[in-house]
Parts: sequence; structure tokens; C-alpha cells
Amino acid sequence: MAKAKKKEKPVILITNDDGVTAPGIRNLVAAVKDLGKVVVVAPDKPQSGMGHAITIGSPLRLNPVHIFEGIEAYQCTGTPVDCVKLAVDKVLHKKPDLCLSGINHGANHSINVIYSGTMSAAVEAAIESIPSVGFSLLDYSIEADFSAARKYARIIVEKLLHTRLDKHTVLNVNIPALKDELIKGIKVCRQAYAKYEEDFIERDDPHGRKYYWLTGEFVNFDKGRDTDVWALAHQYVSVVPVQFDLTNYVLKAKIENLWQHSS
Amino acid sequence: MAKAKKKEKPVILITNDDGVTAPGIRNLVAAVKDLGKVVVVAPDKPQSGMGHAITIGSPLRLNPVHIFEGIEAYQCTGTPVDCVKLAVDKVLHKKPDLCLSGINHGANHSINVIYSGTMSAAVEAAIESIPSVGFSLLDYSIEADFSAARKYARIIVEKLLHTRLDKHTVLNVNIPALKDELIKGIKVCRQAYAKYEEDFIERDDPHGRKYYWLTGEFVNFDKGRDTDVWALAHQYVSVVPVQFDLTNYVLKAKIENLWQHSS
Repeated sequence: MAKAKKKEKPVILITNDDGVTAPGIRNLVAAVKDLGKVVVVAPDKPQSGMGHAITIGSPLRLNPVHIFEGIEAYQCTGTPVDCVKLAVDKVLHKKPDLCLSGINHGANHSINVIYSGTMSAAVEAAIESIPSVGFSLLDYSIEADFSAARKYARIIVEKLLHTRLDKHTVLNVNIPALKDELIKGIKVCRQAYAKYEEDFIERDDPHGRKYYWLTGEFVNFDKGRDTDVWALAHQYVSVVPVQFDLTNYVLKAKIENLWQHSS
Repeated sequence: MAKAKKKEKPVILITNDDGVTAPGIRNLVAAVKDLGKVVVVAPDKPQSGMGHAITIGSPLRLNPVHIFEGIEAYQCTGTPVDCVKLAVDKVLHKKPDLCLSGINHGANHSINVIYSGTMSAAVEAAIESIPSVGFSLLDYSIEADFSAARKYARIIVEKLLHTRLDKHTVLNVNIPALKDELIKGIKVCRQAYAKYEEDFIERDDPHGRKYYWLTGEFVNFDKGRDTDVWALAHQYVSVVPVQFDLTNYVLKAKIENLWQHSS
């Protein structure tokens, strides 16, 4: 990772998907603000489950907010990915040294990485050659206790700022909803194959027309002890390195000649 | 892939991100409708660039539409991923044999796979153990000529219906905007490392307040002859097998012990 030059503080962009006023982002700012020059660009409203959505059919607004003591901050009308793009092009006018996203209120382990606005913001940064980390606490509550998450976020960021890593590095960090003294440490893991079994709740509106709420039950099909789900269940902070080359190379080799003579 | 039992037609779910009235989805339905029992569940409005977004903060509507001759079809107020989830849970009440998405008006090669609602719908199907294919034509025009795309979509679907493939199979198929006779065939590729260099257009509204339009220039950093961008530039239909395990295993091995003694 781009090591900060002597005397020049690293620039750290912070975003999230729960919105700029969420406690999680306040805790992330508090955890790392003395480690570099922190700038916040985050959505002006909750954007959970937005995945890698970008806004192309309507324009975006970007406005300064004064809610973080001594920190330059903006709220954006777009998605978490829009925030990263706008931050680089219109706020920082250059790539920051590191991008942090979160701390998300709720888990982003296993398949959640693909639905999560928090993680998509981090992935977007890495696409743009900015090393990044998404942090999530396994507690959806607005009043969640972020103290252990804050401690581990700081440990992880400190290490990354002093480690030479690839510019496309993205880490997906999940922190169990436990008191600090119960957390056993940090485990580098792979993404578990676990998913939601959908179950839409069907209701009738006052005019007798149906509507549906997306709900689902989380099911873990993957019993591997090297997975993020395993680590979290065993009181570890999970760290999954993420990539944006989605090519399935194993399948590629298998189907290489499937359409050899089709045209 | 789950081979259809004798006499029982395979069930093919079709969706897209340009909306149920787009010419692209009409062409896809026309291309494959005699290959199985086709059911359409697609967004009621354009959802390009929605990535893997899901709708969790508001309910969804699902209504039948009668715009495809002899085909059961629904429009949904949600994202392409919502469409797949709703189709399985509330329309089909079971997993279809195959899910097709598109034909998208515009390219989804290289990094576009991650922003594309078309491809995210296909990936969602694969997460749910439904083999799937996303199709995209390299022409954004509403009046694009889909004749070659339709031909290749059919060739690919026919082959898949008669090949035993993993239930998590996802293929990202892009078709060059060329007359059929100029297309040289089908190439199985990897995703090129190519991205957009953002450039937001800044404007003032009638009240003097700024707003921003996302635009960008496509830049290909990857000269590999095994990439989708190369294949398309050389008049091939590109097929990239896609995965939803985003773990970066190479980086995982490198950082395994980075926080060995941190707690």
C-alpha cells in the first residue's frame, strides 16, 4: 500500500451505506482520525442493500455537513459507490491513500458482500486503485456498542498504513457483537457459501392490492473452518480479502471449447 | 445443468434491467421461446447500473403484463435482483431450469459486470442454484439491430440446455454490434481489467446550486488476448464465466499472518 511520505499524513476517505448521520460512521471516524487526514463523503440517507448501484438517470447533489468535530465532511444524494466516485473527482481531486467504509450496522460476511453498499463502496475504491476496507458489526441496532469494532478497526488500519500492499486490495472485515474481552483476535478467511432463503411477506394494501416485503432466512451451506462465518461464530474478527475480477477460471477451462464450431 | 426430463419442457425465467418494454427482452424471448416454457419477470422501468441492489426499505409490487404473445409475463417495481427473487418465490414457486437476462442495450464486458443490473440478475439466479446467462449487445440504441444477438443467444441457450453444468454457472455474454456475417464465432474469455475514468459534469440549477452528472471515459488497461474486450474488438461474441465467491485467494495467502498477535 502507498506508504505515507514522511511528514505528510495519509489521506483517508471514509464512507458508508447507513448514511452520514449513522453512529457506525461516527465510530469509524473516531477510531482513525489521528492516523491521517480524514475526509468523509457519505450518503444523505440509508443505502443498505444498494450493492454496486450507480446513479446514471438523475444528477447528484453534494453538500458539506458540519457534524464531525474538525473533519471535512459531505453528504451525497447518491449511492455508496457514487460517493466514492464523487469524492475522488470533486472533493479530493486526487486518489486518497486509503478508503474506509462503515462501520456498518449489521453483518456483511459471506454472500452479503455482494448486496452490501458498505462493501461495494470499498470495492469501487479498489477498482480505482485505492486500497480499501469495509467494516461491519454484527449488530443491526442503531444503539449498537461499537467499542470493540472501533478498537479492531484501528488495529487493522494502523497495520495497513505500514504495510506495502497491492493498490487493488479490498478487505471485508466483520466484527462479532461481543465485548472486547470476549473477542479472540483476527482471522483471515475466505467467503463462506451461505445465502438467504427468500420468503416474501405478502400483504394487501387498503385498496385490496397485493404488495411484497423481502425477508429471508440466513442459511449456511459451508461448514469450512476457514470461512468468515466460522470465524465470527467462534469469536474472531473475520478479514476476507475481496477481488473484483469475477472470472470463474475453473469453469472457463471446462467450457473453453463448448461452442467451437458455432457461428 | 439440470437436463429437462423427457417430455417436460425446461422452465426458462427471463428478466433484464432495461425494463419489461425494452426491445432487448422482446428479442431474447423471441430467440428462445420454443426451447422451453418461458416466463418473464422484469422491472417496470429502466434499472441500468443498479448492480446487485435489492429493495429492503419499501415493499414491491408485481403485476401481470400482456405484451408477449403467448408468454406469461410480469412487471415488478423493484431491481433486477428483486425480480429474480420474486419470480422464484411468488411466480414460479420453484426454481426454473435456466435464467436468462437481457438482451441488454449496451456492453457489459470487463468491469461492467459489477455495475450491471442485467448481470446481477444472472448472478442472483446462480446464487440460488439456477444456471444463468446475461446477454448484452454493444449498442445502446433503443433501435439497435438485435438479429445477430438473437441468433447467438439461441445457439448458447441450446447448448446449455444439453450440457451438464454446475448449478452455480453464470455466463456473461456480450455480442458485438455487427451484422451476423461479420461475427467470427464465440470465444470463452476472462474479464478484462478495464474501467471508467470518472469525469462528473458539474452544472448549476436555476437556483444557482450545483449538481453533478456521472460520466466517464472507458479505459482498457489489459491487453490480454484472452479477455472479453479483446474478443469483442476482434469480432467475436465473448463468453465470460462469472463467480460470486469474491475471495481473493492470492491476497489471502499473503496476509494470513498480518495480525497474528493483535488483540
